[in-house]
Amino acid sequence: MKIEIVTIGDELLIGQVVDTNSAWMGKQLNEVGLELTRINSIGDDENEILNVLRETSKRADVVLITGGLGPTKDDITKTTMCKYFNSQLVFNEQVLEDVKHFLTGRVKDINDFNRQQAMVPGNCQVIRNPVGTAPIMWFEDAGTIFVSMPGVPSEMKHAMKTEILPRLVARCDTGVIVHRTVLIHNIPEAVLAEMLVDFERSIPDFVKLAYLPAPGRIRLRFTGRGSDKEKIEGAILLLIEQLKGIVGDAILGYDDVATVQLLASLFNKHKLTLSSAESCTGGNIAHQITMYPGSSSYFRGSVVAYHNDVKMGMLAVKEKSLKDFGAVSKEVVEQMAMGARYNLGTDYAVATSGIAGPDGGTPEKPVGTIWIAVAGPQRVVSQCYSFGYIRERNIMRTTEMALVMLKKMVEEDLS
Amino acid sequence: MKIEIVTIGDELLIGQVVDTNSAWMGKQLNEVGLELTRINSIGDDENEILNVLRETSKRADVVLITGGLGPTKDDITKTTMCKYFNSQLVFNEQVLEDVKHFLTGRVKDINDFNRQQAMVPGNCQVIRNPVGTAPIMWFEDAGTIFVSMPGVPSEMKHAMKTEILPRLVARCDTGVIVHRTVLIHNIPEAVLAEMLVDFERSIPDFVKLAYLPAPGRIRLRFTGRGSDKEKIEGAILLLIEQLKGIVGDAILGYDDVATVQLLASLFNKHKLTLSSAESCTGGNIAHQITMYPGSSSYFRGSVVAYHNDVKMGMLAVKEKSLKDFGAVSKEVVEQMAMGARYNLGTDYAVATSGIAGPDGGTPEKPVGTIWIAVAGPQRVVSQCYSFGYIRERNIMRTTEMALVMLKKMVEEDLS
Repeated sequence: MKIEIVTIGDELLIGQVVDTNSAWMGKQLNEVGLELTRINSIGDDENEILNVLRETSKRADVVLITGGLGPTKDDITKTTMCKYFNSQLVFNEQVLEDVKHFLTGRVKDINDFNRQQAMVPGNCQVIRNPVGTAPIMWFEDAGTIFVSMPGVPSEMKHAMKTEILPRLVARCDTGVIVHRTVLIHNIPEAVLAEMLVDFERSIPDFVKLAYLPAPGRIRLRFTGRGSDKEKIEGAILLLIEQLKGIVGDAILGYDDVATVQLLASLFNKHKLTLSSAESCTGGNIAHQITMYPGSSSYFRGSVVAYHNDVKMGMLAVKEKSLKDFGAVSKEVVEQMAMGARYNLGTDYAVATSGIAGPDGGTPEKPVGTIWIAVAGPQRVVSQCYSFGYIRERNIMRTTEMALVMLKKMVEEDLS
Repeated sequence: MKIEIVTIGDELLIGQVVDTNSAWMGKQLNEVGLELTRINSIGDDENEILNVLRETSKRADVVLITGGLGPTKDDITKTTMCKYFNSQLVFNEQVLEDVKHFLTGRVKDINDFNRQQAMVPGNCQVIRNPVGTAPIMWFEDAGTIFVSMPGVPSEMKHAMKTEILPRLVARCDTGVIVHRTVLIHNIPEAVLAEMLVDFERSIPDFVKLAYLPAPGRIRLRFTGRGSDKEKIEGAILLLIEQLKGIVGDAILGYDDVATVQLLASLFNKHKLTLSSAESCTGGNIAHQITMYPGSSSYFRGSVVAYHNDVKMGMLAVKEKSLKDFGAVSKEVVEQMAMGARYNLGTDYAVATSGIAGPDGGTPEKPVGTIWIAVAGPQRVVSQCYSFGYIRERNIMRTTEMALVMLKKMVEEDLS
């Protein structure tokens, strides 16, 4: 069963809105074993909508359409669907009741725009929308299913989960699908690919391996398909065991979660506390940690020490070290980590000091030179990295690497 | 000139990655007056790539392709492009030199996968990529331009800004296009739209007005098109004057720049210094400030005081105030701001303390209750806000509002 998505809206083409609906739908379809083959994004333009309906009808068995169902005048999906199917808008009592019910307590009276929502193409099957005012429309035409949903993410998601996905799964024997992700850190993609040449050759046909790179890490995703769930899971487990033998301790974890979430579990489980001292990351380590709910249970705080006075005053970095070695040095970053650990009273502390760029580099310490230190109850470790000259990327990669170094030390201390 | 985007990658169809590249490209194209007509996302599948190349060649003048250029074997764009154009991969010395240069210091030796990057279709013009290893390829075929770029956002953006956009603009007479943005803060979109009904009717045909909402602010963007630059600019200036009369001091600025950039100009111009004390924003204020190059000239640092001990120890918040009023209170947030200003030795300091959620709310202080304080040489001001129950949004809106409050105080002090 081939499935395509059509998202409609000028805002998508001028970059005002990022199309997150498609990725969400793709993930849901994939998880139940249905195959999304293409995403088409077009503007609020009748001809373009008609063109894309014609084109997708030839390629796909199912076309999931979002957007263009609001009550305002630039939303033209509904009339265009009528035109495409040679149908007409007809009044639907049930939809009007649903709109009235939904708007009770939200608006004083329903207006013409709201009443307009109850006009639906005569050839569609209406699927009720309890979380909004636009009805969902299911069309079947010449062997293709077209489903038109609102573009509002909460409404689309509700419709997909409660109605659309169950109907599609019922229509199609999707078989068994198993996903497993392995997080690899600090091996460049090309190097990893070379390490895995023989391994990849040994992968059975019913399992696919995908490389998904992100700053400082690569997610390796195994996807197995077939009819025998135990056999597929067994095969993937065996592959992961082989992978361990090849890449060893570059494996960061087995869930597709951020490093900071792995850290949170570790710190909470062992009732440990954390602080940071940030120069080049400028608060991003603290920000990444505190974006997750519940981080206050282990994270006590951070000193963002951009100015050397702050490094000395709040983190007890020695003036002599700053003079002798500079702020971007092993000596200073280690003092920062120890200072944060002591002054914020935590079990562990992580510190960064580097030249994020684009300016500030010297021949000895070019832009991208980054020192990271981790201080724990037993020792302080530090490491120098070179991440290139793009400021944003330096900040992101330093943050990720600092969290990875921290996780390693805690795991070693616990083992 | 009709432009389409093709993004290639299984990860887009299974929802593992959200396609943010397309929105970014759409925005850039729109700003220089070029029209994006469609976005097509497909998997790493040779037939699909060939199909989409054929289809887009019929509809578009320019096809911007991203993804599928990495060194691993699931990346097949390059060989498929050869097949489509009936061309062959040929070795390109310059690309190999660029790859070697890029990888110097990153890897010990380049390997076969890296060398593979230097093989490019014989019929393309190579555009060098100084920020990655995959070359950019420019093809012209039967009246259509195809540009193949890496899917890594930083590499794609660099190529678009430095090479692709200038070339496309040079090829296409886009006429004169004038953009002016007015930043409005703290008026909800629907309220603003109602205030501007008559104003919008008075806008001449050659000027379009767009509402671009972001957390805590709306950008009103005027876009004028035509042939007479002076006439367009004059008309827009007049409109902005009228707008001032309607929305008054809700206008935050006139450039489409982040509040933090406006602040940076203000602080640098007047040689002022800044620090922050962050509880609920968890380092995001410092992070937003330090994402911009040169921020070290005015920003000295931040204390992320998640734990009350840190508020007391590093910001001199009184234990009694924490007990009597709680951490989320006028008293504590003002002490935090004053403490940061004094301890970090800056002219101004901004502080936040609130309940970001999703947990931690009480009947008196529900989730979303946020206190913000600004301390300056002359006074301390503070304000309580209620931003709702979504953690991420609370952090973003608090950061934005803190920067706005800070900017107001500095401007008032200077006037």
